[in-house]
Amino acid sequence: MPVTDRAFLFGDGIYEVVFGRDGRFAFWELHMQRLARSAAEVELKVPLDSGQWLAVAERLWADAGCETGSLYLEVSRGVAPREHSFPERAEPTVVAFVKELKVATEGDGEAALAVLLPDQRWLRCDIKSVNLLPNVLARQAAKRQGGREAILVRDGLLTEGAATNLFLVRQGELWTHPLDQHILPGVTRHVVLEEARRLGIPIRLEAYPADELALVDEVFVTGTTSHVLAIGEILGHWRRSGPDPITARLRQAYLGRLEAETMGAPHSAQSAG
Amino acid sequence: MPVTDRAFLFGDGIYEVVFGRDGRFAFWELHMQRLARSAAEVELKVPLDSGQWLAVAERLWADAGCETGSLYLEVSRGVAPREHSFPERAEPTVVAFVKELKVATEGDGEAALAVLLPDQRWLRCDIKSVNLLPNVLARQAAKRQGGREAILVRDGLLTEGAATNLFLVRQGELWTHPLDQHILPGVTRHVVLEEARRLGIPIRLEAYPADELALVDEVFVTGTTSHVLAIGEILGHWRRSGPDPITARLRQAYLGRLEAETMGAPHSAQSAG
Repeated sequence: MPVTDRAFLFGDGIYEVVFGRDGRFAFWELHMQRLARSAAEVELKVPLDSGQWLAVAERLWADAGCETGSLYLEVSRGVAPREHSFPERAEPTVVAFVKELKVATEGDGEAALAVLLPDQRWLRCDIKSVNLLPNVLARQAAKRQGGREAILVRDGLLTEGAATNLFLVRQGELWTHPLDQHILPGVTRHVVLEEARRLGIPIRLEAYPADELALVDEVFVTGTTSHVLAIGEILGHWRRSGPDPITARLRQAYLGRLEAETMGAPHSAQSAG
Repeated sequence: MPVTDRAFLFGDGIYEVVFGRDGRFAFWELHMQRLARSAAEVELKVPLDSGQWLAVAERLWADAGCETGSLYLEVSRGVAPREHSFPERAEPTVVAFVKELKVATEGDGEAALAVLLPDQRWLRCDIKSVNLLPNVLARQAAKRQGGREAILVRDGLLTEGAATNLFLVRQGELWTHPLDQHILPGVTRHVVLEEARRLGIPIRLEAYPADELALVDEVFVTGTTSHVLAIGEILGHWRRSGPDPITARLRQAYLGRLEAETMGAPHSAQSAG
């Protein structure tokens, strides 16, 4: 990349991470829709359509020769002399790469430790941009305390994880932050909510107050590479005291969807046939 | 740059922009101190010291062959497999380039138009990081309305410009936002406050309420490449109705300081002698 690429100078880019297995990509169209939405919000023209991205993705996957992994896609506003406002003539830069995943898709046996941190991010967390320094700092702070994720609090309300969406179960109800400018519209979150509806689990799309954590029975986070990850403890604030039946059901349901999404022939072969 | 540089993937980098003329750099040590502060805040190790940066800067300047310009320095956390938390072994990436400036150092004759926009940035605006997408979007929104700068409002208070610090004059008092997590500790801001003190201009280090703009007599913004830029109008909110004597005095004083900083032999020759 030239150093005057606007992703390097301004974080002026958007991205997606897609779960893949054997050359098939899970929830492809949801990721493509979200990429288009992010692009529209920052007025960035994505030069590839869904089919062209898929062709790139499949070629990269074949070259990488990995079984289970993630596909990273980024579009930046391109290379231009450094000036904050949009360049007149820059062509968007497209980047894609594949990374092998060590995370087991069947979900960890052990529940993860999380830490609670102030949400210091900007007010457009619904845009999946590469302005991720606050997320980086939060994840690092969590890691330093032995945690796998940082759960963020803004104005006394739990928003989401540093790189995941957050769900809580209280008296049988599944709470998660509503879609607004404070959270990312997670693809895994979307599928988990679909599964919760299918399973008849009552849903409350409401931000959960941090000071009512003591009343919570189960906590889990969701993401493209974490899937449905049970949280066993939020350091200093909450500890799971019993089983996590709703987390377990939703994890199983989600992994079933993931399995169905990544079975069989590659997308393009399928759509060609 | 490799695409897995963390500045490209996460905006995980810090930067400085230094004003230069004829191979001399203005307020060099203040920029170096701020770079060190940003680095400490995000726990990034800067691999060059002030003297090494200067050697790089002077070489680039000579190569560019420009008279008046800006020097851009960036340090990212380096190249590593994509994972939010800090990499174990990455070496920081260092980037520097020189850009010729078209902005006249004597200040524009005409006062600039600004627009008022919500401050959507993160809560550590005191760190000079490359997470600048909100700044980019604000500047672009300003430009679209014919404005040169966006003045940002958080919780009803004026914070700063998208790429400048903000000053207001009301009944002879000079207001500017105090140094905290909501604004960048601008080098030009610092020097202008020094000059204001020297000139006996009363200073109020206090965030100014957006709804009291009608009571303001003068507005200006400061920055390394804008110097002291008079604002003639904040679209739909304020218009200058008389002369701007305090802005004019401070602009003149600042340009005097800038002149003194960039006169004579290059730094290194000077310090060697």
